[in-house]
Amino acid sequence: MLEKINSPKDIQNLNTQDLKELADDIRQGIMNRVNKVGGHLGPDLGIVETMIALHKVFDSPKDKFVFDVSHQCYPHKMLTGRKQGFVGDIDLKISGFTNPKESEHDMFAIGHCSTSISLACGLAKARDLKSENYNVIALIGDGSLSGGEALEGLNNAAVLDSNFIVVLNDNEMSIPENVGGIYKNLEDLRSTKGTAKNNMFTALGYDYFYEDEGNDIEKMIKIFEQVKDSKKPAVVHVHTLKGKGYKPAETEKECFHWIMPGFLNQQNTNAEVVETYESITKDFILNKKEKNDPVAVVTAATPGVFGFDKEFRKSLGKNYTDVAISEEHAIAFASGLAKNGAKPIVALTSSFIQRTYDQLSQDVCLNNSPVTILVYWGGISGADMTHLCTFDMAMISNIPNLVYLAPTCKEEYLAMLEWSYQQNNYPVLIRVPKNPLVSTGKKDMTDYSVLNKYVIEEQGNQVAILGLGTFFQLGKQVKEELKIKGINASLINPKFITGLDTELLENLKKNHKVVITLEDGELDGGFGEKIARFYGNSEMKVLNYGSFKEFSDRADLKDLYKKYRLMPDLIVEDVLKIC
Amino acid sequence: MLEKINSPKDIQNLNTQDLKELADDIRQGIMNRVNKVGGHLGPDLGIVETMIALHKVFDSPKDKFVFDVSHQCYPHKMLTGRKQGFVGDIDLKISGFTNPKESEHDMFAIGHCSTSISLACGLAKARDLKSENYNVIALIGDGSLSGGEALEGLNNAAVLDSNFIVVLNDNEMSIPENVGGIYKNLEDLRSTKGTAKNNMFTALGYDYFYEDEGNDIEKMIKIFEQVKDSKKPAVVHVHTLKGKGYKPAETEKECFHWIMPGFLNQQNTNAEVVETYESITKDFILNKKEKNDPVAVVTAATPGVFGFDKEFRKSLGKNYTDVAISEEHAIAFASGLAKNGAKPIVALTSSFIQRTYDQLSQDVCLNNSPVTILVYWGGISGADMTHLCTFDMAMISNIPNLVYLAPTCKEEYLAMLEWSYQQNNYPVLIRVPKNPLVSTGKKDMTDYSVLNKYVIEEQGNQVAILGLGTFFQLGKQVKEELKIKGINASLINPKFITGLDTELLENLKKNHKVVITLEDGELDGGFGEKIARFYGNSEMKVLNYGSFKEFSDRADLKDLYKKYRLMPDLIVEDVLKIC
Repeated sequence: MLEKINSPKDIQNLNTQDLKELADDIRQGIMNRVNKVGGHLGPDLGIVETMIALHKVFDSPKDKFVFDVSHQCYPHKMLTGRKQGFVGDIDLKISGFTNPKESEHDMFAIGHCSTSISLACGLAKARDLKSENYNVIALIGDGSLSGGEALEGLNNAAVLDSNFIVVLNDNEMSIPENVGGIYKNLEDLRSTKGTAKNNMFTALGYDYFYEDEGNDIEKMIKIFEQVKDSKKPAVVHVHTLKGKGYKPAETEKECFHWIMPGFLNQQNTNAEVVETYESITKDFILNKKEKNDPVAVVTAATPGVFGFDKEFRKSLGKNYTDVAISEEHAIAFASGLAKNGAKPIVALTSSFIQRTYDQLSQDVCLNNSPVTILVYWGGISGADMTHLCTFDMAMISNIPNLVYLAPTCKEEYLAMLEWSYQQNNYPVLIRVPKNPLVSTGKKDMTDYSVLNKYVIEEQGNQVAILGLGTFFQLGKQVKEELKIKGINASLINPKFITGLDTELLENLKKNHKVVITLEDGELDGGFGEKIARFYGNSEMKVLNYGSFKEFSDRADLKDLYKKYRLMPDLIVEDVLKIC
Repeated sequence: MLEKINSPKDIQNLNTQDLKELADDIRQGIMNRVNKVGGHLGPDLGIVETMIALHKVFDSPKDKFVFDVSHQCYPHKMLTGRKQGFVGDIDLKISGFTNPKESEHDMFAIGHCSTSISLACGLAKARDLKSENYNVIALIGDGSLSGGEALEGLNNAAVLDSNFIVVLNDNEMSIPENVGGIYKNLEDLRSTKGTAKNNMFTALGYDYFYEDEGNDIEKMIKIFEQVKDSKKPAVVHVHTLKGKGYKPAETEKECFHWIMPGFLNQQNTNAEVVETYESITKDFILNKKEKNDPVAVVTAATPGVFGFDKEFRKSLGKNYTDVAISEEHAIAFASGLAKNGAKPIVALTSSFIQRTYDQLSQDVCLNNSPVTILVYWGGISGADMTHLCTFDMAMISNIPNLVYLAPTCKEEYLAMLEWSYQQNNYPVLIRVPKNPLVSTGKKDMTDYSVLNKYVIEEQGNQVAILGLGTFFQLGKQVKEELKIKGINASLINPKFITGLDTELLENLKKNHKVVITLEDGELDGGFGEKIARFYGNSEMKVLNYGSFKEFSDRADLKDLYKKYRLMPDLIVEDVLKIC
């Protein structure tokens, strides 16, 4: 059936049986894609019927859909001329998220959560200002609803005096279980088929519609027909089954939210247990818990990313809090925990800590709350442009009072973590290195309470290499390469992203002419520029290496490294020009 | 009566009549302070009885209060040993916001809004982890409730299985009128004395208490006694009168929210109308509105800051949207407006745009939405540490795709505004200069679509001064001072914060030895460091001037300038050392 569909127009004349077949084909497309290239499975399987019904009832692109996270857009893509991204060999030009460059049916490039209501509210307001007439629909999952931006949008869109439709796809799950008062209310509403006295949406002034069988195409068409062309804001609360149609995904919803390529073919292999930065972090935390410390681990709906599996969470009990998708709250909450004597350890990815600039600054740093925040995934990568992890150092490290640490190996990471956990003087962030884990085998005895002490790992002259965090290894390679050219460079491990070791830097002037900085992130606003500023009034030459200020998109990592000249031979070429 | 009160213990034995007298004394203290040194008036006058009752019923600091914004903390300060900040000559060491350094009764330094619930939630969770037993109370105004952080906190705190009390001080106002679905619900609740069927708090699972007469001490004591030691999360919704006790403030709530020193003594003087950056911005906007353009002005509850008075807002009609305190939504909403053909102009202060890093990055820049965002108040100042405006350039200018402009005068500002408004290719932010307005009298004919073109205003040699935005005037002074020392410096207006004019910078190498950068904001992550990086591999010396990475607090501006060496004579001293 999918073969015949090249645009939403092609489904207008299909009968229910045809649409059901189409749903089956779409599910096959989803399975085919995620098994080949990885991606979101559960969210897409669950929303197939909703999406078919939306395209049947509404007239995209005249009517405008805005997807939250847009990790559930695969059915939409298959219905809007992009099935080549899902069937057969998979055309990889089609991404896993909405993108206006791919299709006029996509309004925005979206990958972060909780944004759809605000974005759609803007579309609706512009429509009204121009006296145009069509439907604007925000499609948001229950998991995204706890995010501040979504709730701010929900408040404001409620007073739009015109058409505005929020489709709330309630599959009873965020990535892990939902947490919070909102979810108690959704549970009430589901268990009463939408008739509960307490209803947060009618409380905010929305018209409210409920459909319990969100995977029934006929019912979904009916409810959308009811709300179509509504002249005031409405919420359509749809109950669907996450993972629908693939039993393991229906049962193990968290596990099948997003999967790696080939995952569906894997049997329960007895994979060798490898030590990772995630595993040693868990061991560290469990050790504190066993000592009855008031350790308080905080995540914002992505515990799996950090390897915080169900068993681990269960072991921690009340010492673990998932706050749902609400990164701002997570940071402020941690400040409160620290101020009252608990020992918070917050885990966030580089991409999502972007949501917390003001909370880091005001709630944490202004109060010097001794929180420990672990920043995962930081670094240049081939990720989607919506999930780049190159900006954390530039965003975080210019906020006063905090200490942002860049460990280069397991031993350093553990020493930093222990110091941060024990001390009461600073907010500390640690950029957890990417795996594979590097180990020196030597316990790190550094006293990190002496801030901003860089370490000369190998003393040389003429050229000094500052290899920050994960790029310390690159620094080693550059040193080797320079040696071949007859230069015995010094190799330095800065450890601290947030401050300069002015004494060490000053001393380098004595027998070095060039300082090289290597950082696994954006140059603009980052570490290297501070070194360049320090040497601005001196004879020292400074070469900064890192990523450019740009949104790369699913780029080949090697191409990026080449472009940024983050390769030993290219760096040496630059050095020789000025040495 | 206030004379006898040195700590909350001293009010325990007072009878109702005594407490009423105390309330009068506290109101006098508030009036005295704000008239002498300026500050928040309406919020503090309204909350006097609530605060007395809180201190009568609860046992601070064992029981813990967290203030939202903490602009309503004056009565609390007078009751907790800090009346010298309010009576007589006013001790200015006492600030207008809570601060743990002042008193053990203050849990946090707070100045931004919507943070109290999350911070208090952290205190409560830490208490539970340590098996302690006391009340934790978040005191939040209706205006702050629309902020995403508050709503995230409300969601999460709802599932605390222990004591947690949110006191919602509902005075029916944000700074301007409240906007959004939440406020419809509060209105419902007020009009039914708390019995409305729709109740967003019970929907989220909170126990709910309502007191309509929030300025009646006896009733307030009674309701707090009811909720004290509650074993589950509760919301106490209190209806108060903003400005209570001072008629003009009761009537003109927006006007008397925050006042300047001496304001209460002023008669309606016919002040000379002076042209300001605010007034020319309003003229620009009204002109677009008159042409029936789809201009869409967006503010987040602080229109008065930009001079967007009631008359102006009324003139704009549907072309004006205040989104309530919800900066994240404001930015995403603007992206939606732009994507659908409207012409959004968002106005925010430097301090509060800090809330929108991720929305700028993901919702706006990743989508290249042609929004215009005006950033007010940017620059080094003697502000409270909670309201510093020195970080916007470091935060904003390292995000890809956007153009951040720094006009140096009226003509440039208007040309930039017009260009930004008309173009469809970039998100544009403009750092609105601080008054007084500077005018060259010459229309700016620059084509800003040619990005990153700096202008050499005066060609010299040896030394080049890059005076960014408002610091262009400082650059002029430095040039004059250098002339006295026999150096004919070049004076350059960079205009663009977000990019380098590499051609111009390259050319400077020919006959300049030193480049000076001057920026009215934080050095770390800012403009000057990018110049230092550019010249890192060359012979050019670079001196960067701006503020340090620190939270200054109500500092004397001259002291700051001296510390940062932002004075012509100090800069010349530095130049001569290396020239």
